[in-house]
Amino acid sequence: MSGFFVHPNALCETRSVGAGTRIWAFAHILPGAIVGRDCNICDHVFIENEVVLGNRVTVKSGVQLWNGLVVEDDVFIGPNATFSNDPFPRSKQYQQRHPVTTICRSASIGANATILPGLTIGQNAMIGAGSVVTSNVQPNAIVTGNPARVTGYADMTRSKVMSLTAGELAAVEGAPVAATEVAGVTLHRLLRIDDIRGNLSVGEFTRQVPFTPARYFTIFDVPGTRVRGEHALRSCEQFLVSLRGSCAIVVDDGKHRQEILLGGPDYGLHIPPMTWTTLYKFSADAILLVLASTFYDPADYIRDYQSYLAGVAEAEPSAAAPMRA
Amino acid sequence: MSGFFVHPNALCETRSVGAGTRIWAFAHILPGAIVGRDCNICDHVFIENEVVLGNRVTVKSGVQLWNGLVVEDDVFIGPNATFSNDPFPRSKQYQQRHPVTTICRSASIGANATILPGLTIGQNAMIGAGSVVTSNVQPNAIVTGNPARVTGYADMTRSKVMSLTAGELAAVEGAPVAATEVAGVTLHRLLRIDDIRGNLSVGEFTRQVPFTPARYFTIFDVPGTRVRGEHALRSCEQFLVSLRGSCAIVVDDGKHRQEILLGGPDYGLHIPPMTWTTLYKFSADAILLVLASTFYDPADYIRDYQSYLAGVAEAEPSAAAPMRA
Amino acid sequence: MSGFFVHPNALCETRSVGAGTRIWAFAHILPGAIVGRDCNICDHVFIENEVVLGNRVTVKSGVQLWNGLVVEDDVFIGPNATFSNDPFPRSKQYQQRHPVTTICRSASIGANATILPGLTIGQNAMIGAGSVVTSNVQPNAIVTGNPARVTGYADMTRSKVMSLTAGELAAVEGAPVAATEVAGVTLHRLLRIDDIRGNLSVGEFTRQVPFTPARYFTIFDVPGTRVRGEHALRSCEQFLVSLRGSCAIVVDDGKHRQEILLGGPDYGLHIPPMTWTTLYKFSADAILLVLASTFYDPADYIRDYQSYLAGVAEAEPSAAAPMRA
Amino acid sequence: MSGFFVHPNALCETRSVGAGTRIWAFAHILPGAIVGRDCNICDHVFIENEVVLGNRVTVKSGVQLWNGLVVEDDVFIGPNATFSNDPFPRSKQYQQRHPVTTICRSASIGANATILPGLTIGQNAMIGAGSVVTSNVQPNAIVTGNPARVTGYADMTRSKVMSLTAGELAAVEGAPVAATEVAGVTLHRLLRIDDIRGNLSVGEFTRQVPFTPARYFTIFDVPGTRVRGEHALRSCEQFLVSLRGSCAIVVDDGKHRQEILLGGPDYGLHIPPMTWTTLYKFSADAILLVLASTFYDPADYIRDYQSYLAGVAEAEPSAAAPMRA
Amino acid sequence: MSGFFVHPNALCETRSVGAGTRIWAFAHILPGAIVGRDCNICDHVFIENEVVLGNRVTVKSGVQLWNGLVVEDDVFIGPNATFSNDPFPRSKQYQQRHPVTTICRSASIGANATILPGLTIGQNAMIGAGSVVTSNVQPNAIVTGNPARVTGYADMTRSKVMSLTAGELAAVEGAPVAATEVAGVTLHRLLRIDDIRGNLSVGEFTRQVPFTPARYFTIFDVPGTRVRGEHALRSCEQFLVSLRGSCAIVVDDGKHRQEILLGGPDYGLHIPPMTWTTLYKFSADAILLVLASTFYDPADYIRDYQSYLAGVAEAEPSAAAPMRA
Amino acid sequence: MSGFFVHPNALCETRSVGAGTRIWAFAHILPGAIVGRDCNICDHVFIENEVVLGNRVTVKSGVQLWNGLVVEDDVFIGPNATFSNDPFPRSKQYQQRHPVTTICRSASIGANATILPGLTIGQNAMIGAGSVVTSNVQPNAIVTGNPARVTGYADMTRSKVMSLTAGELAAVEGAPVAATEVAGVTLHRLLRIDDIRGNLSVGEFTRQVPFTPARYFTIFDVPGTRVRGEHALRSCEQFLVSLRGSCAIVVDDGKHRQEILLGGPDYGLHIPPMTWTTLYKFSADAILLVLASTFYDPADYIRDYQSYLAGVAEAEPSAAAPMRA
Repeated sequence: MSGFFVHPNALCETRSVGAGTRIWAFAHILPGAIVGRDCNICDHVFIENEVVLGNRVTVKSGVQLWNGLVVEDDVFIGPNATFSNDPFPRSKQYQQRHPVTTICRSASIGANATILPGLTIGQNAMIGAGSVVTSNVQPNAIVTGNPARVTGYADMTRSKVMSLTAGELAAVEGAPVAATEVAGVTLHRLLRIDDIRGNLSVGEFTRQVPFTPARYFTIFDVPGTRVRGEHALRSCEQFLVSLRGSCAIVVDDGKHRQEILLGGPDYGLHIPPMTWTTLYKFSADAILLVLASTFYDPADYIRDYQSYLAGVAEAEPSAAAPMRA
Repeated sequence: MSGFFVHPNALCETRSVGAGTRIWAFAHILPGAIVGRDCNICDHVFIENEVVLGNRVTVKSGVQLWNGLVVEDDVFIGPNATFSNDPFPRSKQYQQRHPVTTICRSASIGANATILPGLTIGQNAMIGAGSVVTSNVQPNAIVTGNPARVTGYADMTRSKVMSLTAGELAAVEGAPVAATEVAGVTLHRLLRIDDIRGNLSVGEFTRQVPFTPARYFTIFDVPGTRVRGEHALRSCEQFLVSLRGSCAIVVDDGKHRQEILLGGPDYGLHIPPMTWTTLYKFSADAILLVLASTFYDPADYIRDYQSYLAGVAEAEPSAAAPMRA
Repeated sequence: MSGFFVHPNALCETRSVGAGTRIWAFAHILPGAIVGRDCNICDHVFIENEVVLGNRVTVKSGVQLWNGLVVEDDVFIGPNATFSNDPFPRSKQYQQRHPVTTICRSASIGANATILPGLTIGQNAMIGAGSVVTSNVQPNAIVTGNPARVTGYADMTRSKVMSLTAGELAAVEGAPVAATEVAGVTLHRLLRIDDIRGNLSVGEFTRQVPFTPARYFTIFDVPGTRVRGEHALRSCEQFLVSLRGSCAIVVDDGKHRQEILLGGPDYGLHIPPMTWTTLYKFSADAILLVLASTFYDPADYIRDYQSYLAGVAEAEPSAAAPMRA
Repeated sequence: MSGFFVHPNALCETRSVGAGTRIWAFAHILPGAIVGRDCNICDHVFIENEVVLGNRVTVKSGVQLWNGLVVEDDVFIGPNATFSNDPFPRSKQYQQRHPVTTICRSASIGANATILPGLTIGQNAMIGAGSVVTSNVQPNAIVTGNPARVTGYADMTRSKVMSLTAGELAAVEGAPVAATEVAGVTLHRLLRIDDIRGNLSVGEFTRQVPFTPARYFTIFDVPGTRVRGEHALRSCEQFLVSLRGSCAIVVDDGKHRQEILLGGPDYGLHIPPMTWTTLYKFSADAILLVLASTFYDPADYIRDYQSYLAGVAEAEPSAAAPMRA
Repeated sequence: MSGFFVHPNALCETRSVGAGTRIWAFAHILPGAIVGRDCNICDHVFIENEVVLGNRVTVKSGVQLWNGLVVEDDVFIGPNATFSNDPFPRSKQYQQRHPVTTICRSASIGANATILPGLTIGQNAMIGAGSVVTSNVQPNAIVTGNPARVTGYADMTRSKVMSLTAGELAAVEGAPVAATEVAGVTLHRLLRIDDIRGNLSVGEFTRQVPFTPARYFTIFDVPGTRVRGEHALRSCEQFLVSLRGSCAIVVDDGKHRQEILLGGPDYGLHIPPMTWTTLYKFSADAILLVLASTFYDPADYIRDYQSYLAGVAEAEPSAAAPMRA
Repeated sequence: MSGFFVHPNALCETRSVGAGTRIWAFAHILPGAIVGRDCNICDHVFIENEVVLGNRVTVKSGVQLWNGLVVEDDVFIGPNATFSNDPFPRSKQYQQRHPVTTICRSASIGANATILPGLTIGQNAMIGAGSVVTSNVQPNAIVTGNPARVTGYADMTRSKVMSLTAGELAAVEGAPVAATEVAGVTLHRLLRIDDIRGNLSVGEFTRQVPFTPARYFTIFDVPGTRVRGEHALRSCEQFLVSLRGSCAIVVDDGKHRQEILLGGPDYGLHIPPMTWTTLYKFSADAILLVLASTFYDPADYIRDYQSYLAGVAEAEPSAAAPMRA
């Protein structure tokens, strides 16, 4: 119980507090709580018995951490952010056990946000101030609003690739393939023939489309608030074309992340294996055509971002640390 | 002032606290406040002088209860839930008297919810976490969002009765009337004739429609966020058909409650007298046809849920306690 | 073969021509044709062997009357109006028998109209100049366009009864029931309650609605080009309300005919028994509510206008001749 | 120059008339005209000097055949059908030469149709009565209206393959491939996964799709009145999927013809080489995905139906005569 | 009665025929008809007693000219074109007097067109083949369809001035005013400021707009088939901007005619006095802003094209003959 | 350190507190904070070192005031209202300097509202309870929702001037100009001519429009959530007409404020110089026409409300204090 600071007006009943941690006035920590190293527990915070906090966690004023909450290293919790551990509370009616809410490593909870019980807030996610979070939040996702919806991903650049006018088509004539900031992901201009009898968009395999597909699929009727993908494929290449409407594709190679808004059949996006891919912001009329280099194989999917990062690290043993170590 | 617990770091200035009540650290209760039995007043709560709390009330951390607030028995108030008692506050400008906010028996206020001044939160209602409540909430209603809208009713089942395909019509051929979980409420299949010259939906009185109506009315152009009905009729029977679009009907006999989404002219819902009825989730194009067994008589309406429950109890003296005593 | 005129440049090979008929230059009538009294056969007309013409028929120049055509009394056929008797003609491929086309009494075929084979053009109908008629035309109907659609009925007045503004509602306050030009048909103002929670339209039976219904039905999803009704009911009363959109109702008592465009739930139309009724001009969103005083009985329907007129005449033995005798 | 009949009231100034031909009253044929064998020239027809008629042609009454018109064998021209040979006529202003209008073998022109100058009416086409034809008509096409649009093809059957309900999907579970009436054309059921996060339609190459494609293209934004395709491919296979909306595909193997309305992503249509294919009736939102087994090669296209029939005959030397010889 | 030709198979009963006129086989002209010089009356034409034809008129085969028709000089009437002189014909029911139909100088009636009774077909108008004309046609107008609608004007060029993209705006930077082919009519580029808070379109008087207006007016809610304007102003200048949607403006200085499709607020059209102006092809959402240099004065309007041409000729005594003399 | 009250359970570490200020239980004020006179700092408030509070400020319970916050005189901050000073917080990552958030004089922050970092809340603005404020708020604006949008302005009346029915047009015939509650602002009825060929709205300058404009501009495509204007013009008069859709105009003469919803071309709003004007609530299809009496001159604009009030005061030296001193 040495090496951490408790303000005289605070009430710290636990002895499990890491070195370098500071606990400020009118904060109250119950005896069973476990607090890591170098944490900052601000005024008027309340922490229940069964709560475990990692290292370097910041808890701003007016926050309560209830039984059932797990807070990993490097988490930031803004002032008056509010948690709950009963999905349908009635006075004096107690649950057998609390649903577990996990705030993963490096995530931040914005000021006065509300987090419903039983959710996982993914690594490095960012919850906007005042949001009301009603479902799980993926790693790196930025969510805002009531209810909270994904509005972006942390640490990424954005590009737009919309349908071209005739003039623009001419202008890009000389550059049919463009690199992105993400390893191996390329943007391919497709042939388009406008005709008063209707229009054609064309891609030839091994030419505009850099592989021969084993299958195609289309994604359609996606509610505007939904996110799809959120996985990487071990060996399958993909080629995406937005036939109608638009959707945003976030590609991530473990080091760089980029959002590309595909808005028309003039461009296709080539995604090599081992690229973490997320699709969202589907317009109501969006139809996305996906050409895939292999048959469907569930074993080819990595659906957990941590496993994905591990896979990338393994594949590139000499590589530097991942994006947000 | 015996039989209740005050944490040493709390400041309890009132003596009107019921037995079994616990008051936790850094809570502050002013001298005039009245707190019932078996309440739980958590850390960092503040209660003003004119506030009255019922029995078995839970007030989680970070909540302030201002003058003007009435909290009935068995209410749950989540952490950081926020009340107000001035609809248009300016510093140093004081109102003659505060608008009264009443939280009725067994209601729950979700974590970090905001309740505007002067409202009544009905018995057994549930305010979603993070909601901003701007108008009265009916008994049993579940509300969420900013501004808060009714999204359901507590303790009820849900059914959907949409338009049928030709195949489905054939399948139900043998079962023209179906019971619901609510006493006396039945669902009646109506005749439908599809024709390339336009379609017909038909109901014959005393046959498909179980009574001869004294009047009809139609409900239309209902804003999607509105709730209608919220009453019981003492002697009038009703038969409801959704001619276009859809709407949800919540029927409640005091013991069971069920939501039925009526979505097409293939079915009618027969509602006997003394059924508490609420209509909501009207689609933008909804037209609801109501056939009623008596002429309009304002005296036939019970518009208060408590009175309705009393009426039901009276009619059935030997019955068990109502649904959520 | 006396008593009719043949121009010297005409070629009349039949002897079956009625007195008073005139046949003009370059007309050609084959030996088997039968032509009634007081007809006028203009220049460049051609009439085949199996054709029978009634009395007082006018055939303007450039018309051919092919085998399979029956032309009743008092018909007018405009210049270059064109008939056909093979629905899918190929050179040198002959049908076993021609489909029969009947032009009923007093009908008129407009200039340069085209009549497809096998149709009946009803009594007193009027085919607009240049129309292409592809389906049967009901008695009294006026059709125009390519393909021809009903745009009105001969010898009738028109009224419009649309939804009312608040001001208009007030203005008609004192006149809840209005007569029409057709015997027994009345227009009834219904109660309407506008409310920001949605609107109500109300009718009480034996009060606003002049009878107690035995059934209701609704008509919806009617293609805009379709005509419904076209019948009279022997004993059933009807009350029609346009709940959404609009449709036109043509009522006809055998002496007077009136079209009423019902465009909103503020008015109902009461139709007594023995009224020939036609419904058309349905807007895409139209929903028509019909309340009927008796259960459905196929024997109650008169579906042939001639039989209807006979029935009316029988009921009123001393009455004058019907509208367009 | 013997062996044909001229009615005494006709005026036939040419001597070039084939045996078996009959020319009726008030018809007038100028000296330079050439008329084939077994023709039937009805009353009041007028034929100019430079016109050539094939054998077995029927010309009904009231028709004029102007200079510039070529009428092949077995053509039927209905009564009062009207041709023209000046696209922008002004009195006394003469063109250098007339645009040529060709009515190909076995075509039929409906009664009172109007044909604008300079068009080709394809072999076996059918022009509806009263139509106004403003552009070329393909072989076998049926056109109607003003302006005339393709509404079908002669001598064919029709099928519909719309999106399936869940129940229907289950029902066809055991039959993933269905033959059509046209040689080698098959319908393939595709996998569809409905999901509240949006839906997927999937096809694997060499499995659901019976070949590995060399390219894909999509057809979209087709005006509803347009016809596409109208060609056969010598060596390329195609697989068509209607991703959104619907369109009709007419497939023709030279002996049988079938129209298939593709209305959803649940089915693909496999078209082998040497199938005459026409696409039309595109809904406004239609997007058709085409997978093709070879790269684009203009030399692979047969764009003339006669050449196509010759190609089919050559490939099957012992086969019977084509469909409509 | 010398100097004109009558075919031996024709029947010409009038003596009032101008020199150079030819009348062909099976034509029939009644004794009272008057036919001008150098006309061409083809086979199977019929002309009634009260008809007057101008000089150099062409009447193709199968046409009847009924009492009530006035045909001015240089008119062309295509084959089987059909006139009528009774708007609601019934056999043996005769009108007191026929409505007068006038085909003005140099107009052309397309093949098989139908002209309803009582209309005026303006000078130099062009009626498309197969059209059904149901209302008056303005001078120079081209109409097609059933019913016929204006689709263009004779002898004019067309331009489009749509909304500009940012790139296009930059490209025209150096050319704020452009002449048209019509005397004095100029196109002025207006300032436009795009802003995410909404866009601005700006015109300063005496700068972008070349005069100071005395009034403005807006034209809106114009049915798509309607034509407006059709007049010239003696002294008032106008400046037209299409604020929303698009409409076509036909400007005519008596010598040249041009159609300009105005499709967005980026351009204004300056029209000097004494310019014949017609507005049509309004899109459903079109709002046209008109700034006028003088107050409204009915006396400033010339509404008759002949008077306008006379006014122009007077103003320019030495000018050559008008456009289409 | 005399003249102010600190509750025994509070922790006030600063000496810079004004006379009359009260600091309540469990509040904590750091040594560097500066608090003005007559403030009220409620229970559980926390104030950081660099914060400066004006006089007569109310801070309700559960509020934290972070470094970077400036709170002017007479501000009200509701309970649990939450501020933040890091737009993208991560634990243990510190900004060089905090963005400054300023709450201007007399503004009120509603209960449980969330204010993002770096914003200015304008003088007398009102932040609704539970709002999440993501952008600057103008003086007097009332904002609500998540994200917060302007829904009104403080201390103003509202009027509606929508399109008129024919009856209403007649009713106001005698009153073409109406005053408003704001000095010099008048409402002018414009001439409107309804016509089946399309409608006209007309204004003559110096007659219906009270000045001759030097320029016009139109505002269109304004996102529904946007606010425009928010300025006064020193010398330019304006005349506003809503050509399509509707928008609300808030006019303010420094003493009175009024919102006028302009909803159709029947009325124009005349705004004299030196009127503070705000435009908002644009419907999606709104097109606002503005006629201005002078050419555009940036120097004519006052864009700061304080400067505007100063300008008004200067112009009227003897006037009383402005609206909300």
